[in-house]
Amino acid sequence: MVGIPTQAEGPAICALTAKAGVFTQYEVDTLAEMWQEYDSAGSEATGYEFIVERTGGGAVAGYACYGLRNAEAGIYDLYYIAVDPDGQRSGVGRRLADAVEQAVRAGGGRMVIAETSATSIYDSARAFYAGLGYRAEATISDFYKPGDDLVIFVKRLA
Amino acid sequence: MVGIPTQAEGPAICALTAKAGVFTQYEVDTLAEMWQEYDSAGSEATGYEFIVERTGGGAVAGYACYGLRNAEAGIYDLYYIAVDPDGQRSGVGRRLADAVEQAVRAGGGRMVIAETSATSIYDSARAFYAGLGYRAEATISDFYKPGDDLVIFVKRLA
Repeated sequence: MVGIPTQAEGPAICALTAKAGVFTQYEVDTLAEMWQEYDSAGSEATGYEFIVERTGGGAVAGYACYGLRNAEAGIYDLYYIAVDPDGQRSGVGRRLADAVEQAVRAGGGRMVIAETSATSIYDSARAFYAGLGYRAEATISDFYKPGDDLVIFVKRLA
Repeated sequence: MVGIPTQAEGPAICALTAKAGVFTQYEVDTLAEMWQEYDSAGSEATGYEFIVERTGGGAVAGYACYGLRNAEAGIYDLYYIAVDPDGQRSGVGRRLADAVEQAVRAGGGRMVIAETSATSIYDSARAFYAGLGYRAEATISDFYKPGDDLVIFVKRLA
């Protein structure tokens, strides 16, 4: 079931980001900072929203972090989506992404943007977004570092 | 002379954004919110940096607002650059942009990104960036609204 994380689930969310195995240390650290800000100041002040999917036993099986990028234009950023490797291929990621879309629609949003890397370590991330109906609409070469391009995936909500 | 704005210059910075005549009301309001956050919490907490250029008489002739987008990658966003229409074509905008670049280099940055619109009201903004060595490297169609594309200008610092 997808829901809003409790304060007590923060450490599990941060640990899962590292365990997922696809994020750099900088990305893991940045997510931890975003959680801390969200936890202490709330979504209104930070612009960050978190949702989690829990296992039957109540453990955090995955989470997504998203937020408004441009209120006037109705555009949201999907900052992070991470699933416990032990639970992948069970649809957790898709349910989280669907829940983000549902929330974006409910907030009047018309577009979700997911930025990722063109390198092979993110092959599965790009395939995941493509499977959800996101399209790679723009790239900026050598963004993350020389040879590591930014790919901007966009999903336009009907 | 380019310098760091004082607290007392906040209203002039916000007023100039409206006076510049190229920003939407939403963009004017967003800048005012960014100034408020910066003014109360500082650049470290918000990630926003402001610089101003003053006239000989000490009035605000223009300002720029920028900030770190990705610390690991050394990428900065140039969020706003605005010049008093009464003082345009006197090089204020270029001096502000140069000062931003200098600060980015000093911070170890290697890339500055300026996002703007492809519509005709932003013709002068796009020409301004192009003249400074920024290149339009990516677009996302219908970003701001149907028919109003996002253009991502990138300047790679040597």
